[in-house]
Amino acid sequence: MQREELIEGRNAVLEAFRAGKTIDKLFLLDGCQDGPIRSIFREAKKHDTIVQFVSKERLDQLSPTGKHQGAVVCAAAFEYATVEEILGRARAKGEDPLLFLLDGIEDPHNLGAIIRTANLAGAHGVIIPKNRAVGLTAAVARASAGALHYTPVAKVTNLSSTIESLKKEGLWFACADMDGEVLYDLNLTGPLGLVIGSEGSGVSRLVREKCDMVASIPMQGDIDSLNASVAAGVLAFEVVRQRRGGRK
Amino acid sequence: MQREELIEGRNAVLEAFRAGKTIDKLFLLDGCQDGPIRSIFREAKKHDTIVQFVSKERLDQLSPTGKHQGAVVCAAAFEYATVEEILGRARAKGEDPLLFLLDGIEDPHNLGAIIRTANLAGAHGVIIPKNRAVGLTAAVARASAGALHYTPVAKVTNLSSTIESLKKEGLWFACADMDGEVLYDLNLTGPLGLVIGSEGSGVSRLVREKCDMVASIPMQGDIDSLNASVAAGVLAFEVVRQRRGGRK
Repeated sequence: MQREELIEGRNAVLEAFRAGKTIDKLFLLDGCQDGPIRSIFREAKKHDTIVQFVSKERLDQLSPTGKHQGAVVCAAAFEYATVEEILGRARAKGEDPLLFLLDGIEDPHNLGAIIRTANLAGAHGVIIPKNRAVGLTAAVARASAGALHYTPVAKVTNLSSTIESLKKEGLWFACADMDGEVLYDLNLTGPLGLVIGSEGSGVSRLVREKCDMVASIPMQGDIDSLNASVAAGVLAFEVVRQRRGGRK
Repeated sequence: MQREELIEGRNAVLEAFRAGKTIDKLFLLDGCQDGPIRSIFREAKKHDTIVQFVSKERLDQLSPTGKHQGAVVCAAAFEYATVEEILGRARAKGEDPLLFLLDGIEDPHNLGAIIRTANLAGAHGVIIPKNRAVGLTAAVARASAGALHYTPVAKVTNLSSTIESLKKEGLWFACADMDGEVLYDLNLTGPLGLVIGSEGSGVSRLVREKCDMVASIPMQGDIDSLNASVAAGVLAFEVVRQRRGGRK
């Protein structure tokens, strides 16, 4: 899912930091102290990036085009997969597809933790919507603890129409929401998509209507809801439990 | 668990921000623009605190001692409970105690999310060690989504000796770690303490040795471990499932 890319030039480098890219290392021209370079240095400190001060010769060597203006970064670019590629992974393993569909997760910690959970629960991929959601930023990569290198993430325009077409492939869909059936009483074996709602507003009405099941985690406390990544974890490992042959 | 406190004076207010206290609101003297007040204002912006510029009369009114130096904050102070109080909650409800013991959680998001999970799984309290761990800061309170108002947190000097004495009260202890029994095969009903290790290094050896059971979440992926708060959630809701009468 990952390739390395070199980004050079003052604006491009600054932009890479500000866009939240996963920057592995920053190379700056040694002795150069003007305003733009200092801005880049500040951004690098803010993101705990390793900074190396190098000679002009070394920069010229690193630079793909020679137009580095004193700044080059080595960035990790995470690429999105397609839904078809995710299904292909399940087929290649001879397993029933298990997918996570995230209906608008906005917190990078949560997205990263869910990708991590998806990896460890044996899911074949994660699907996120193009809008109203966080993408694969550096913070997400960090929170995924490396899972982003293994578990593909696809970005789709419309989550409900993706559900529609995946149903034609034989998948069933369960969304995590209140007022559903207790998850332990549902049959969560077989080809399955787990739908997790956003932190603030849960699963959107249109998406919920497309789901075959509404899975509720039985709550006993005083507050409203679990953290989205915790809810995803509870649901994912109930699937694991059932697939291991655990009875209801 | 919560009381309100007014903190006044420039250094005390700045310190409250830097110590990570939950600041509800900052009152600054209108028109005052000197260095220390600007520093306080910057800290407030950094923490997304609501700032209100008020007259000297209003500040004098708010101030408990009159020595506000142009800055007063209204802070939420979360108080630690005792282990005895936590056991008392279980007794008062006529329930088997269910406690979380966190062996060195360092990330405020994780601590907050675990307190949130503890609340919703019906746990009676959370126990954290005095050292090597994050305390009840503003970030923890935010991540707990209000659960910190309901679920008591006790701070102890030594987690293994706390486990020792709770065993005398009839509790059993299960820690989440690798190389244990699959959690679905364990009996997690009855008076129970769930021990969650730190993000980096898991459960410490001394604490693990005190536990009656080692509960392992079956992992299938490419990376090492779940996020600590997700692991706590999976374990907590397996307890909930078993207590609801779910068979193994």
